[in-house]
Amino acid sequence: MLKNIDPLLSADLLFALRSMGHGDDIIIGDANFPGDAIARETTFGRVIRTDCVSTAEIVKAILSVMPLDNFVEDAAGRMQLVHAADEIPPVQQEVQDAIDASEKDAPKLLAIERFAFYKRAKQAYCVIQTGERRPYGCIALRKGVVGPDG
Amino acid sequence: MLKNIDPLLSADLLFALRSMGHGDDIIIGDANFPGDAIARETTFGRVIRTDCVSTAEIVKAILSVMPLDNFVEDAAGRMQLVHAADEIPPVQQEVQDAIDASEKDAPKLLAIERFAFYKRAKQAYCVIQTGERRPYGCIALRKGVVGPDG
Repeated sequence: MLKNIDPLLSADLLFALRSMGHGDDIIIGDANFPGDAIARETTFGRVIRTDCVSTAEIVKAILSVMPLDNFVEDAAGRMQLVHAADEIPPVQQEVQDAIDASEKDAPKLLAIERFAFYKRAKQAYCVIQTGERRPYGCIALRKGVVGPDG
Repeated sequence: MLKNIDPLLSADLLFALRSMGHGDDIIIGDANFPGDAIARETTFGRVIRTDCVSTAEIVKAILSVMPLDNFVEDAAGRMQLVHAADEIPPVQQEVQDAIDASEKDAPKLLAIERFAFYKRAKQAYCVIQTGERRPYGCIALRKGVVGPDG
């Protein structure tokens, strides 16, 4: 355990977040996401498990230390529902609320079609797999910049 | 880079600090310390380098996230000067100042004879080697507990 750092940020997750640079993507997959298979194609190369944690809980912990990329339109993405393209289920709305609370001019979650989401995930820096049981708890977050004043 | 985390805390160092538990020791060695050789006998198994950083700078960064053990007398140790057992040189006084600033009832640096320091270092969780050029920039810090309220 560490002072001033969310306890959900494990040693592996802190290592990954600190290693990421501007524009690198972190993927949060729900309990049904093919996290292990996809993570093997990422830079980090293996899945980071946070088995008993919800999507919004881990997003909130990540955003306590990671700024989002404000140079791009796709800083935050959500897997689009296959049979309801425009619906934003509670599992994703909770993430939007966490993003809104994390910074000024927070980005809106961009809908990403399921297989396009898998493609983005394979190109990511790393994949976290949560214990989220609700479907579509699948989120992409692109890292921004920390300036010289912190 | 991460928000709200001292930039001197590298990915490796954050990983090590988050992995350590109550009573585990972290050793800070100066530029002449046999860090690589000793680190191979520690739990972490390899030295963590912070080449351009002074002893007090890295101690301050570590103590921004790591509490000291308040169950023991030897929570903080310094390598004793071989020819001046009672002298506390500036390189060690700066560390004491950083410890004093980090928490209430901060411990005093306990003098540890040179070879006893090497012995403690080999039993540590990990060894960091700094770029500190002043001799005796060698410090041991034992990790404390973070309670359920942070």
